[in-house]
Amino acid sequence: MVNETQHTCSSSSRSDGSSSGSESSKDSSRCSTPVLDADRHERLREKMRRRQEAGDRWFSLEFFPPRTANAAVNLISRFDRMGAGGPLFIDVTWHPAGDPGSDKETSSMIIANTAVNYCGLETILHMTCCNQTKDDITGHLQKAKRLGLKNIMALRGDPAGEEWEEEVDGFNHAVDLVKHIRNEFDDYFDICVAGYPKGHPEAESYEADLRHLKEKVFAGADFIITQLFFQPETFLKFMKDCQAIGITCPIIPGIFPIQGYHSLRQLVKLSKLEVPQEIKDVIEPIKDNDAAIRNYGVELAVSMCRELLDSGMVHGLHFYTLNREVATTEVLKRLGLWKEDPRRPLPWAVSAHPKRRVEDVRPIFWASRPKSYIYRTQEWDDFPNGRWGNSSSPAFGELKDYYLFYLKSKSPREELLKMWGEELTGEESVFEVFTCYITGEPNKNGYKVTCMPWNDDPLATETNLLKDQLEKVNRRGILTINSQPNINGKPSTDPIVGWGPSGGYVFQKAYLEFFASSEIVTALLKVLKKYELRVNYHIVNVKGQNITNAPDLQPNAVTWGIFPGREIIQPTVVDPVSFLYWKDEAFALWIEQWAKLYEEESPSRMIIQYIHDNYYLVNLVDNDFPLENCLWQVVDDTFELLN
Amino acid sequence: MVNETQHTCSSSSRSDGSSSGSESSKDSSRCSTPVLDADRHERLREKMRRRQEAGDRWFSLEFFPPRTANAAVNLISRFDRMGAGGPLFIDVTWHPAGDPGSDKETSSMIIANTAVNYCGLETILHMTCCNQTKDDITGHLQKAKRLGLKNIMALRGDPAGEEWEEEVDGFNHAVDLVKHIRNEFDDYFDICVAGYPKGHPEAESYEADLRHLKEKVFAGADFIITQLFFQPETFLKFMKDCQAIGITCPIIPGIFPIQGYHSLRQLVKLSKLEVPQEIKDVIEPIKDNDAAIRNYGVELAVSMCRELLDSGMVHGLHFYTLNREVATTEVLKRLGLWKEDPRRPLPWAVSAHPKRRVEDVRPIFWASRPKSYIYRTQEWDDFPNGRWGNSSSPAFGELKDYYLFYLKSKSPREELLKMWGEELTGEESVFEVFTCYITGEPNKNGYKVTCMPWNDDPLATETNLLKDQLEKVNRRGILTINSQPNINGKPSTDPIVGWGPSGGYVFQKAYLEFFASSEIVTALLKVLKKYELRVNYHIVNVKGQNITNAPDLQPNAVTWGIFPGREIIQPTVVDPVSFLYWKDEAFALWIEQWAKLYEEESPSRMIIQYIHDNYYLVNLVDNDFPLENCLWQVVDDTFELLN
Repeated sequence: MVNETQHTCSSSSRSDGSSSGSESSKDSSRCSTPVLDADRHERLREKMRRRQEAGDRWFSLEFFPPRTANAAVNLISRFDRMGAGGPLFIDVTWHPAGDPGSDKETSSMIIANTAVNYCGLETILHMTCCNQTKDDITGHLQKAKRLGLKNIMALRGDPAGEEWEEEVDGFNHAVDLVKHIRNEFDDYFDICVAGYPKGHPEAESYEADLRHLKEKVFAGADFIITQLFFQPETFLKFMKDCQAIGITCPIIPGIFPIQGYHSLRQLVKLSKLEVPQEIKDVIEPIKDNDAAIRNYGVELAVSMCRELLDSGMVHGLHFYTLNREVATTEVLKRLGLWKEDPRRPLPWAVSAHPKRRVEDVRPIFWASRPKSYIYRTQEWDDFPNGRWGNSSSPAFGELKDYYLFYLKSKSPREELLKMWGEELTGEESVFEVFTCYITGEPNKNGYKVTCMPWNDDPLATETNLLKDQLEKVNRRGILTINSQPNINGKPSTDPIVGWGPSGGYVFQKAYLEFFASSEIVTALLKVLKKYELRVNYHIVNVKGQNITNAPDLQPNAVTWGIFPGREIIQPTVVDPVSFLYWKDEAFALWIEQWAKLYEEESPSRMIIQYIHDNYYLVNLVDNDFPLENCLWQVVDDTFELLN
Repeated sequence: MVNETQHTCSSSSRSDGSSSGSESSKDSSRCSTPVLDADRHERLREKMRRRQEAGDRWFSLEFFPPRTANAAVNLISRFDRMGAGGPLFIDVTWHPAGDPGSDKETSSMIIANTAVNYCGLETILHMTCCNQTKDDITGHLQKAKRLGLKNIMALRGDPAGEEWEEEVDGFNHAVDLVKHIRNEFDDYFDICVAGYPKGHPEAESYEADLRHLKEKVFAGADFIITQLFFQPETFLKFMKDCQAIGITCPIIPGIFPIQGYHSLRQLVKLSKLEVPQEIKDVIEPIKDNDAAIRNYGVELAVSMCRELLDSGMVHGLHFYTLNREVATTEVLKRLGLWKEDPRRPLPWAVSAHPKRRVEDVRPIFWASRPKSYIYRTQEWDDFPNGRWGNSSSPAFGELKDYYLFYLKSKSPREELLKMWGEELTGEESVFEVFTCYITGEPNKNGYKVTCMPWNDDPLATETNLLKDQLEKVNRRGILTINSQPNINGKPSTDPIVGWGPSGGYVFQKAYLEFFASSEIVTALLKVLKKYELRVNYHIVNVKGQNITNAPDLQPNAVTWGIFPGREIIQPTVVDPVSFLYWKDEAFALWIEQWAKLYEEESPSRMIIQYIHDNYYLVNLVDNDFPLENCLWQVVDDTFELLN
């Protein structure tokens, strides 16, 4: 909204008989309680109110859509990293030139969709109304609703030409868009509008602009985010003026940490704001020193934010990030607002789509690929789909091309080749790659293996607990892709394995998932006979030949938590039916991510193809969670049998 | 079926495309796995087949309906006691003279209903067809189906007069009834028919009778139970003859342990059987010595059963109990067939109604009154109704008069007065009664208190673990009616607290439920502030004034189990919503069972009335199940505060 413009219009009142937008009902026959986190059931305006009432301070982050698909992959990683700091929401701007409502990977709509559904972030989608027909806008809003977006920032947008021309079958003012949203979608969306602490550049006067803001609020807006400003007094005066004319909704100051000389100049030009002389005086002399300007910008932002928060009138701060991480993160850390909470509400990242808010159980297989799981289950009507073992469950989405966007590694081909081998000489060189990923040691060419086709991130802290054993087995061809230790009642606040509300206890059954040759599997099956009552296994090859001792194809709970005053929660299961869907994905990753790095018919490619065609995917669960994990003994016995 | 008669008719074949009669579907969105016990989902004929294939031996028990309501209460207790020995099924005979299809407490229909729904016993209801119209019979069958009965023993029944007269709009032969059931109810019912090892007394010949039996089987019967006989050879020959003419379904020998001279004589008269001379020779000299005859009868039955089982042709034995326990139980114990399995499938007794077979969670409040819980939830469409906290849940049935039949104590008024006091002198004399119930010591008049209005049985083994503490608190006016210790992962095979399949672990949160004066409750609430994060409480008086710290009225799981290859099961919860229904029942029991023992306006009655009107019902859960139970400390602190 940095380059947002505004027009005036007549006032209108608003009904506030807020239906809570609830979509629950299906959960009445479920015994597990998904309501771990009140946050998950509240709409944004309620979260704001609750935080304000509790005296909590919070922040939010603004991003613009990227220009290329690669930039989109990077932005999504940034969402994950900056999301870890605990923003109350993020917002995604609307770029009329970038086909913002389309299905392109780079459109505002799809980026906001990704933030909500795949990154689990509460998200506001900007929407401008100029140069668009009513039907266009309704179409965008319907699509946003369908995708699970719940918040709209209603803006006028910039005119196409120099001069403003009225749209015949459209809207000419942000207030019209607010009214339209309320008319067509009742109370479904939370609506945000823009405020201008210095008055909108096109407004007749500061006072007239305040009146227009009041009209937008009275037309149905829930809160206000302001244009950037350079001095705290500017905002505080504006806020008092707003209150004086009867605007009572939350007003969130927009904070712009100066990050460079050129970005500041461009911004100022677009927003028609004037940079105060004392700031100019500091910046001009260091204009070619990016680091110095950023340090100054951080300093300035921190001091301004402190003053705003100390005033007692401000509870939340909105940051114009310009899609960059360093400056904003630094400001937030220095303010003490950046809160990386090791305690997760569930062991996996929760999606923010309203229909997924009761989701509280997933198969363990996608533990390192949550976005893929969300993608493949996005058409499900309700969550959790409970027992996947039930044949009436909806199917998993197919492994289609578009899906590869989420499947894609963050690393470019050259980097992957350095990690996984420019040239493979045999199955052993594959074992070596797996082993280096586990140990964190450089491979024989001196490169660290920081990701694998099944896991785009370095080893999880929890998996680190198993590092020594994992190294040993990978070296010998048990190629592990997923594992967890057994846990017999650790506090839910444990920094490594904890999740859920405090005061609870978490549990896990030991889990090990790997690829292995048919020779190993044959020996393993003999060994498993000794562990028949203790270890559950599923063993499958790419053709779907499947060997298991699971009773009646029932899911096996492998992670659960016991909390004060709650029902039991069992967020992770080993499910026999979804394992076969996962199998397709796990085997496809050998080819799509690894084999295709090499020329067709090349020996390296044929080695991976051989493994893909001949190895088995195995998972093992040790049901005796209070005892020492027996899976390492199972593997040792297998190797011994092979010798 | 002792006095059953039979007629001939034409043969007919039967389609055996058995639909499994499954009614599941609702369980698809549940995360807990109710399928603990394959038995619960099988129909009787499948259970028989599975037991036979597994080489297991089993038994079943026949009862007739009682004449009076008091006798019905006794019979139901007998069902519970004899059900503990593990019969594959019981059957209830059809007494045309006793209005057998009516809603009377003593009717065959209602007794069978009670066995299935309240005692959790697989049950066969007998049904005779003579002297009834087709519509009458269809009505009975529809009612049986509605009540959850799944098995019918199809019989002709005795003629009204001396001579047999054809019914115009009815059936004259058992085979007609079999065909009718299959025509009207398809494969819903399992059907049993009667076989006569000596041939039916009215049959033209033994061979003709065998042919009639074959007709009944081919018309759709699933298995055969035979009339009693006195020598094993009689049955074994009969069985071979049946097989020779192509009867392949299970044939179960009817065993009659001789229990007394007169009952034997009467039976022989009705069945028109002849008692072998060698038996007569033993019995006649001791005909006035009941104990001696019973001992002989047991001896004879054991030896006959051994011979039958040793033949390898017999897998199950059906006992004509004559509604008596001792002889049959003794025979079964000596044969090693009586199996009191301390391992329960769930912590509470499972109902055998098809719609309740997926039920796997109940509020803890009815732990000692499972029949009342079943009665009050009998109209629910599906089980478990999951979250009772959900307002869309169906309501609990009301405390109506008929309900009092199940509410009624097994002990007569005089006995209750001896236990609970002919005359109460104050609240302390009530404390004394509670304390004596806990300790098992006689009260001051020398009588043991073996039941309480809230619990018709002596203290559970598990509660015994808490005996010392319970005694202490009851003595001081914390009048406990329900409690369980905390359990942190004991094997599911534990003889006291274990349940569910072997190889699992069971857990509990400590629970304490009691009545207490408002003085105690005031102190307790102060103490509970210290335990705010650890202890959940609900405190309510008869008027419904309710104090709780339960988050969002969610159920709190207090018993759960972790099993190999399964989802978590949490069969017992403390549910805030159903607690208020329980409250009505718990307070009503003071008046209905205790106060009404005394004259109106009598001091004793007024003491109970005072407690009813002024005391609170309290429940406490200690959420920290791995630590030492803190509830005793809470109570101690409360008493200390009061001093």
